Amino acid sequence: MDERIRKHAQILVEWSTEIEEGDNVIISANPEAQELITALYEEIGKKGGKPVTLYRSNEASAAYLKNHEGELQTPEHKLSLFKEADAVISVRGDPNQKAMNNVPGEKVSSMSRANKPINDLLSEKRTSLTVFPTNSQAQLAGMSLEEYRDFVWNATLRDWEEVEEKQEILKKKMDEASEVFIKGKDTEIEMNIAGNVGVNSSGKHNLPSGEVYIAPIPDSVEGEILFDLPIMHRGKEINGVKLRFEDGEVVEYSAEKNEEILENMLYTDEGARRLGELGIGTNRGIDRFTRNILFDEKMGDTIHLALGRAIPRSVGEDGEGNDSAVHVDMIKDMSEGTVEMDGETILKDGKFVWEL
Amino acid sequence: MDERIRKHAQILVEWSTEIEEGDNVIISANPEAQELITALYEEIGKKGGKPVTLYRSNEASAAYLKNHEGELQTPEHKLSLFKEADAVISVRGDPNQKAMNNVPGEKVSSMSRANKPINDLLSEKRTSLTVFPTNSQAQLAGMSLEEYRDFVWNATLRDWEEVEEKQEILKKKMDEASEVFIKGKDTEIEMNIAGNVGVNSSGKHNLPSGEVYIAPIPDSVEGEILFDLPIMHRGKEINGVKLRFEDGEVVEYSAEKNEEILENMLYTDEGARRLGELGIGTNRGIDRFTRNILFDEKMGDTIHLALGRAIPRSVGEDGEGNDSAVHVDMIKDMSEGTVEMDGETILKDGKFVWEL
Repeated sequence: MDERIRKHAQILVEWSTEIEEGDNVIISANPEAQELITALYEEIGKKGGKPVTLYRSNEASAAYLKNHEGELQTPEHKLSLFKEADAVISVRGDPNQKAMNNVPGEKVSSMSRANKPINDLLSEKRTSLTVFPTNSQAQLAGMSLEEYRDFVWNATLRDWEEVEEKQEILKKKMDEASEVFIKGKDTEIEMNIAGNVGVNSSGKHNLPSGEVYIAPIPDSVEGEILFDLPIMHRGKEINGVKLRFEDGEVVEYSAEKNEEILENMLYTDEGARRLGELGIGTNRGIDRFTRNILFDEKMGDTIHLALGRAIPRSVGEDGEGNDSAVHVDMIKDMSEGTVEMDGETILKDGKFVWEL
Repeated sequence: MDERIRKHAQILVEWSTEIEEGDNVIISANPEAQELITALYEEIGKKGGKPVTLYRSNEASAAYLKNHEGELQTPEHKLSLFKEADAVISVRGDPNQKAMNNVPGEKVSSMSRANKPINDLLSEKRTSLTVFPTNSQAQLAGMSLEEYRDFVWNATLRDWEEVEEKQEILKKKMDEASEVFIKGKDTEIEMNIAGNVGVNSSGKHNLPSGEVYIAPIPDSVEGEILFDLPIMHRGKEINGVKLRFEDGEVVEYSAEKNEEILENMLYTDEGARRLGELGIGTNRGIDRFTRNILFDEKMGDTIHLALGRAIPRSVGEDGEGNDSAVHVDMIKDMSEGTVEMDGETILKDGKFVWEL
């Protein structure tokens, strides 16, 4: 076994989910990640946790959805499994990113609705989402498998304690600020984050990580923005997305490619047309766009907004966050442009406040 | 996809577990069986069932057990999953039959104890155990993968309704009979089955199947028998076993190979020296011995006796069945020889009562 796989498992078990004796642990993974699964069983065994692994396969899901008629229902047995779990480690390692390609959008939305009670439970658990490098992801990222493995583990096997300390500066700025103003190419957008909570994402819930994010107050978003990096949604690429917000709602939208997918997503439910997240990426180990949101949104010197559900922990007690069945991240390069909070420059032309 | 995989999935969903709308279904499978899993998702989708798949890996289990210290505890989240399930489909498709080889026996026993509350639930569910052909099984059976795939699906893709009807004749003979007399090469043995129940195994709990079995009254067994096919016990092969019974107990035993393993097994407990099962195999799609009891004991024109524990559903209310910690099946070729019940010939020189 590549020693980096064992190190990856150790970070997941010791740092990300802090597994302890007696913990009920769920691993959800593609079978392509079997080496990491085996390494996780070693590490969880050492801690005395109790692992159960769910087989994850978009190919099987596509086969199911194409043959299922009518509205999907929540699987009660799976819900019970998650209710009793203490920690959930999700490993993405798809053998083919396009497996869900010819599944009708409304079926995928129906599945999202059916799984919502399960996803809602996750906020009460110690969770971590990570990636195991496969050929399909390497291909999508434009790399050989070896090159991609280097990329993934360079981004992942970091000193997360140190990252956490640096990011605490950004988190505190967010906690104290109300007005956010973002200016860049084809972009002038403002929102209010008062009362909500900056989340210092340092390799716990996402691995790799390297971002600080907060929930905007849904109705406060005004203005327009161009996302110059592609948006990946259900294995498809939506390019050149422009959105205009009024009173927090998307009132105009366009895309250069796959606009109908954007449209479908926007009409999943009412919350799908409002923002749930403002994030700032800090991981400079992620030095290029690889069509994988787990990496892309953490890319150093980018920001991202997400349509849909706010992550509960980014919503303050006196704050307000958006609700929806979807959560779709959209990234904007900030190597040119500025982010201001209550008039203070936080990010300018690719430099953070502590580098200016 | 090989159409036989789709047909295999259809039998599992429609015949074996009779999946209906709203059923909570668990699939437990090695990732090597992914084509069958995908086909199961298609078929379960058509029925409106709700599948969850557990990743099964002896390699991961071995990694866990080797690193875990102390007694294992029941995983409560997995127990909850099974409590809420209506049907469980287990697919064996190991990539390596020896993955658990160097795990200490007491750790495997500890795992069995921890999982007992989950296994105990299975008797209340619709369950089916099947095999997906892999290279490792093919190798053990002495075949190429292609040849083994033909073998597995010839044995599995049968008209199980017709099998059930045919076997019902044997089941009724067993239900009504008292005295059984078996005569063949180096064999003259008799036993009493009065009050016990013939079980018609027709592709439900085991797929493939094709056997009818009943519990003998433990003290009634008299005579001697040669098992001309190998006995598989804890991954080892015992050949040319001869047993002589008096008052139901083994009083003489010999084997051409691994006699000491036979001896050890016989002295596990008192019940290990008495019979728990008399079975008749009817599946002529299984035309050779492959070192996999799921197939071997169903072989057409064979009978098998099991030392040890009787299966509860084969013991009548007024009947009597054997108890033991072990259950070891031993197969005898009946292409020459006869089985009589209350003086009526049931099987003679490889022909069943309805073929004579």
